[in-house]
Amino acid sequence: MALTSLVSTAMNDPLSDILGILACGVFTLVSGTIGAVLIRKPSSSIKTGSREGFAVVAFGWIMVSLFGTLPFIAVAKMHWIDALFETVSGFSTTGATVIDKTLVLMDGSVLPNGIESLSCGILFWRSLTHWIGGMGIVMFSLAILPMLGMGGQSLYNAEFPGVKTRSDQFTPRIASTAKILCLVYIILTFLEVFLLYMGGMPLFDAVCHSFGTIATGGASTKNINIAFYQDSYIQAVIILFMFLGGCNFLLHFRILTGLSLRDYLNEEFRTYVVILFFSTLIVSACLFFSHIVDPVSGNKYHHEAWLSFRAALFQVVSLSTTTGFTTANFAVWPAAACIILMGLMFMGGCGGSTSGGIKCVRIILLCKFSISELRKNIFPRSLQNIRLNGKRFNLSGTNRILGFFMIYIFTMFLFTLLLSLTCDMSPLTAITASISCLSNVGPAFGTLSPDSSYAWMTSTAKLLLAAEMLIGRLELYTILIFILPSFWKK
Amino acid sequence: MALTSLVSTAMNDPLSDILGILACGVFTLVSGTIGAVLIRKPSSSIKTGSREGFAVVAFGWIMVSLFGTLPFIAVAKMHWIDALFETVSGFSTTGATVIDKTLVLMDGSVLPNGIESLSCGILFWRSLTHWIGGMGIVMFSLAILPMLGMGGQSLYNAEFPGVKTRSDQFTPRIASTAKILCLVYIILTFLEVFLLYMGGMPLFDAVCHSFGTIATGGASTKNINIAFYQDSYIQAVIILFMFLGGCNFLLHFRILTGLSLRDYLNEEFRTYVVILFFSTLIVSACLFFSHIVDPVSGNKYHHEAWLSFRAALFQVVSLSTTTGFTTANFAVWPAAACIILMGLMFMGGCGGSTSGGIKCVRIILLCKFSISELRKNIFPRSLQNIRLNGKRFNLSGTNRILGFFMIYIFTMFLFTLLLSLTCDMSPLTAITASISCLSNVGPAFGTLSPDSSYAWMTSTAKLLLAAEMLIGRLELYTILIFILPSFWKK
Repeated sequence: MALTSLVSTAMNDPLSDILGILACGVFTLVSGTIGAVLIRKPSSSIKTGSREGFAVVAFGWIMVSLFGTLPFIAVAKMHWIDALFETVSGFSTTGATVIDKTLVLMDGSVLPNGIESLSCGILFWRSLTHWIGGMGIVMFSLAILPMLGMGGQSLYNAEFPGVKTRSDQFTPRIASTAKILCLVYIILTFLEVFLLYMGGMPLFDAVCHSFGTIATGGASTKNINIAFYQDSYIQAVIILFMFLGGCNFLLHFRILTGLSLRDYLNEEFRTYVVILFFSTLIVSACLFFSHIVDPVSGNKYHHEAWLSFRAALFQVVSLSTTTGFTTANFAVWPAAACIILMGLMFMGGCGGSTSGGIKCVRIILLCKFSISELRKNIFPRSLQNIRLNGKRFNLSGTNRILGFFMIYIFTMFLFTLLLSLTCDMSPLTAITASISCLSNVGPAFGTLSPDSSYAWMTSTAKLLLAAEMLIGRLELYTILIFILPSFWKK
Repeated sequence: MALTSLVSTAMNDPLSDILGILACGVFTLVSGTIGAVLIRKPSSSIKTGSREGFAVVAFGWIMVSLFGTLPFIAVAKMHWIDALFETVSGFSTTGATVIDKTLVLMDGSVLPNGIESLSCGILFWRSLTHWIGGMGIVMFSLAILPMLGMGGQSLYNAEFPGVKTRSDQFTPRIASTAKILCLVYIILTFLEVFLLYMGGMPLFDAVCHSFGTIATGGASTKNINIAFYQDSYIQAVIILFMFLGGCNFLLHFRILTGLSLRDYLNEEFRTYVVILFFSTLIVSACLFFSHIVDPVSGNKYHHEAWLSFRAALFQVVSLSTTTGFTTANFAVWPAAACIILMGLMFMGGCGGSTSGGIKCVRIILLCKFSISELRKNIFPRSLQNIRLNGKRFNLSGTNRILGFFMIYIFTMFLFTLLLSLTCDMSPLTAITASISCLSNVGPAFGTLSPDSSYAWMTSTAKLLLAAEMLIGRLELYTILIFILPSFWKK
């Protein structure tokens, strides 16, 4: 928040806004200090098991989200539920927004010019929540989850053959891994800011959009999102960095330290690229042969190969990495394109990335499991033999992934039902809103298409979706574990 | 077909129709005889393994479907693709229909009065395909699948503790089991015909609707389906028998032979009833507080408790048992009601019934598996301990069910995509059409709502959906196994 108030000063925001953000920062600092002092215990009396680990992670994210609402409430004068939605959406790198021209503020007025009527400080804070959240999630999935002995461990051990021995060499402790990942994250951000700035984007917007890209968040400083930039270079840069944000960050690190390209192209990466390639191909073809005129940009796709390809590639990469940036209103695209985009939202990016969703590596293993089960009908006594990167994947790991998938489906269905009970919307809107928030994408279909926002929803629906974003962001288990009675037993 | 021509004679159909159906029967008989003679082999040279079993089942259903099209083509003059769709829909007890007032026949004319312009012979044949298919599927899931050593066995062994020893006593061979199940099936049919006839339904319609009910098919002799009968008694009878058709037929048999009520109410049955109860409750409430006027029956639900409850109960039972009878256009109901109905279509009825879908027992086990996986985060070394009816369910059985679920989801997604690529429709229509046909329900949402039909679809889409019905009907594995290269290896 201190950084935000500095940026706010540099961008010549009104003094009241600058002081407001600073006050939020001071309040957070004081609250934190008081809290830390109050619950201080001699370190010997603290028991740390996996339950304490889960509690720390979940409670940490909730606290960060609560204090993160302060600038939205104090400076932007948003209702606390809207502010909470926006903050959770920010930290969870979802990018779903309630801010548009219809958003009713605390004093009953509406924002005349939507996102663009907010001061630079608030816009920066909004993008910064993405960036902090994205870094947090890389830490979480590559450093904290393995420590907690969760599904992550076996997943990443299998995914990176030999990662254990190697990491023992260069990262003796989790703190080191964390530092290295932070470095990769910061380098990528700087690189994108530079490239966007070179492409003619103002520095402030370049920084905000870079935060949103690397974190695969999706909040923009413009009302019509990236459709504002009808420049192929800028869109190409964003596509590239969305893609990098959707890849495993350990790979990025290891290519910097001289990993051979052959190791880099592991099974998940290769499959992910193939999926993106064919998705883009089909979506492009759908647009090329359709008679759609984009309601946002006014682009006509019919028999326009470049426009169709660019729009398709951007949306395919944006939704599959669960960024949620948009250059077009994809909700009006042909049904086949919509179905593919929904499938990609469901899948998400690679494991160990900032993206949400089921993750590509899990989908690969689930496919292999299905084929193995199908084969068992012919050879009933054959053993399950699922391989990833040539190495055998053990049974308990497969079961964890199946469990994850099942819980994902059940959670999605439950929240779809609750949403449709608490807010008047079409079935398609309810289903895709639920997928979008659980996978941390942002935009959805129906009345939550890219040219709309979540502003019209009821307060209960907004709270439900905020909960869903947090559940999805922390890989389901970390939050859902709290509903088990056995979690609370001594 | 011989039976159909007799019914056709009794109902005073035109002579050409009667002779046409008879000719189809003769043609089928002659083809079958020729085929049987041609491929005759000394029985000692026939190797029968599980692969041959699968081939016989799949090939059998395909042959039955092909010859079943004859009356639709020869007498009703339908296009062969429409006829195939209707026949597969019949035998698979789906009840999706292409017959409405817009269906273009072979000579380019349309049916002036939809279903009601067909002769009684064709209507009877259409319902008879349901009845034959329903009986076939009870045989398939309770007698053939266990014989093939497929998932069925462990499922039913677990579901009926002690079924093996008991069945050894009273059904020493599969043929006996089959005979007993046939008997139950026929008794239930007669009972429903009698009750419907008592309620004032003409005998012919009573027979046709009974065939459609017990088989959980859904084809009606009326254009507006069961909405034609705005009589609570008739609707109640149909609801009761749809429910019985959605329960395990072994239970029906065993209650006839003096099974105690306590054993009857096994875990699947109890859960199924609870799910139906709460679904009906929520859907009724949605209708009660909505301002919807049903476009088919003209019923106003607002603050009409009885009408809301009746419509909700009928639709909940009809869609969850995958019958697909309709008394209202549920596609215009509030989103929450639609979401619940979609979930029920997805789930289907109980194992060992004539209904389709995932089946309730599988959903129960999947839920238990998910909770067990969630619990593993706190107690990582705890063993998986999933119980059904108090007995431990083994790991390989759980994996088979997980495999089934995964393959169901992948198949559904693939066909949704193919549908939307080959036919112009909304995403919601494509998704629900795919679920509806894979679960053998019939009606769907969007432009396939109950007041519409599948007539408007392209030929490719109809063939795709027909394939999906067959895949869903034979519990996925039986058909999908053919795509494995290893199936074809010696």
